[in-house]
Amino acid sequence: MNMTMEIEYLGYAAGLLTSFGLLPQAYRMIRTRQARDVSLSWAIATTIGVSLWFCYGLVKQSPSIITANGITLLQLCIILALKIRHG
Amino acid sequence: MNMTMEIEYLGYAAGLLTSFGLLPQAYRMIRTRQARDVSLSWAIATTIGVSLWFCYGLVKQSPSIITANGITLLQLCIILALKIRHG
Repeated sequence: MNMTMEIEYLGYAAGLLTSFGLLPQAYRMIRTRQARDVSLSWAIATTIGVSLWFCYGLVKQSPSIITANGITLLQLCIILALKIRHG
Repeated sequence: MNMTMEIEYLGYAAGLLTSFGLLPQAYRMIRTRQARDVSLSWAIATTIGVSLWFCYGLVKQSPSIITANGITLLQLCIILALKIRHG
């Protein structure tokens, strides 16, 4: 195994954590039916940002950018819906 | 202006939104002194993930990865501290 491969494992670990990191936030909002302390501006800005990354990935034909941001976008849509519903 | 440049503007817009998107979340937690609905697991997982992206950027010597994740990491440290303090 060479150094370049080891560095890519660092990238995969980072990508997994930042892609699936929102799951516990969505789960907490589903469980407690509370969302008051979650910022709507954060949810909207991040959803738009991740949507743009997703489009960027499509144009660049980059499977890793499409996959990572697609997974994040799904979780953000759930969080955004829960924020709007539970305030 | 060619197509490639236009695509990069899409990337810059996405990067700005996802880099500074956490600011309103930090501001909300500072203003209300409440953090109950924010998931600690999300904050920890995302902080570790963004730290790894930061290290990846350092190893790859990529100024854009270092800058974007450095800005995000600063906001996450504030949010993590506020979550631990205000619960």
